[in-house]
Amino acid sequence: MKFTVIGTGNARLLPVYGCQCIACERARENPAFRRRKTSAYISDQGRNLLIDANAEDLLLRFPAGSIDSVVLTHYHMDHVQSLFDLRWGVNLSIPVFGPDDPVGCDDLFKHPGILEFKSARQPFETFYWRDICLTPLPLIHSKPCLGYVFERQGKRIAYLTDTVDLSTEVKQWLAENPVELMLIDCSFPPVDRTVGEQPSNHNDVVLARSLKESCRSNKMGLIHIGHDLESWAMANPQAFDDDFFLVSDGQEFNF
Amino acid sequence: MKFTVIGTGNARLLPVYGCQCIACERARENPAFRRRKTSAYISDQGRNLLIDANAEDLLLRFPAGSIDSVVLTHYHMDHVQSLFDLRWGVNLSIPVFGPDDPVGCDDLFKHPGILEFKSARQPFETFYWRDICLTPLPLIHSKPCLGYVFERQGKRIAYLTDTVDLSTEVKQWLAENPVELMLIDCSFPPVDRTVGEQPSNHNDVVLARSLKESCRSNKMGLIHIGHDLESWAMANPQAFDDDFFLVSDGQEFNF
Repeated sequence: MKFTVIGTGNARLLPVYGCQCIACERARENPAFRRRKTSAYISDQGRNLLIDANAEDLLLRFPAGSIDSVVLTHYHMDHVQSLFDLRWGVNLSIPVFGPDDPVGCDDLFKHPGILEFKSARQPFETFYWRDICLTPLPLIHSKPCLGYVFERQGKRIAYLTDTVDLSTEVKQWLAENPVELMLIDCSFPPVDRTVGEQPSNHNDVVLARSLKESCRSNKMGLIHIGHDLESWAMANPQAFDDDFFLVSDGQEFNF
Repeated sequence: MKFTVIGTGNARLLPVYGCQCIACERARENPAFRRRKTSAYISDQGRNLLIDANAEDLLLRFPAGSIDSVVLTHYHMDHVQSLFDLRWGVNLSIPVFGPDDPVGCDDLFKHPGILEFKSARQPFETFYWRDICLTPLPLIHSKPCLGYVFERQGKRIAYLTDTVDLSTEVKQWLAENPVELMLIDCSFPPVDRTVGEQPSNHNDVVLARSLKESCRSNKMGLIHIGHDLESWAMANPQAFDDDFFLVSDGQEFNF
């Protein structure tokens, strides 16, 4: 079974349109450094579980019949944008699981097309996709938002975006059920949390690293990366290593 | 000055995801027959006026600084999807003109980013982009919707999507101000309008042709094309000629 990260950027993308910072210029010159909007999928024996849906080429990448289900973290546009294209397919029905958000995004619930929106997933109530056990974890964000822990044969991978920090109960759950790999929202470089306005929706690199320790995660990969963090990382490569790293678009993890 | 149609499909796209009709299979085999969502732009001396914004590659196609303004027909997702990416640019401000629709689309008005939403355009009240005179025409659709006639040096091109039929006053205006080329919504093959449920939001090919006559349009190009119309056109090529034709993605018109 393979876990593939499609995109690792935030809603601004990388390069940010019109920005000339060092990270944006590099991504413009070399597409290998581009970051698309954060989303991922798990593939197992030709079947795919999408985790959010916002890839430019989603319909080409996943031909009809290859998408088994979709799990959503939340209904912000940069996480569900491709559902607006996917919904108008025919001869198909695709189950979609997500958090309890009666608003959803624009008219998705009114005109679901082939998307079969299932009743909301509740925090900590496990469910299965094939033989993989999913545990939804409540995140801290401006819209109802769930992270997911995927477990198979005792190995766990956590996908936690979008969030700033984690609640005490989520930290405790993760410390008791430690994951091999935690992929977590980290939009910002270190933020001085003693002064000024604090980022209220996303982690910075210091906060993310502290969560790695408190949640006893073996490895941590950063996703939902903003251009300021990328620029900072270019200037501070020593801040990262094999166990604490920026994930790249297209990166695969086998487990 | 060049008028370029970026996409010519409807929200379902062509191929329709999961569809195996003759038109969808052809588009799957040969990308030249693909139809992306309907949008267009006018370019003049390196400056571009976008007409709706929903191209997969919009940010790459139009590097920062090359989009002068955006005019919107309406706020359905398949016409404004790319604004959700464009808005998070920096060091820019892009004026956006559109119809009077206080709802807009999702949270675009709440979080406009670099988009500068201008006060609504009123039907028949002309305004200018560079030396091109734009006349907004009210269309008949499920959401407030404007078509536009672009006029320069006495030559006119009309861009009328999304609409089913045209109001008497719009037909009269067009008959009095005939256009060289009318690009118009035509999603469907001939519909029997004496029986059953009628398409209430989009033209069929018979209705479109009748509008060509009543509006005294020299040429008519069909856009917002659905797969059923495409299949019908493949079986009925004699229904089309140089003055009444299906527009292709990427097709350019000089005027």
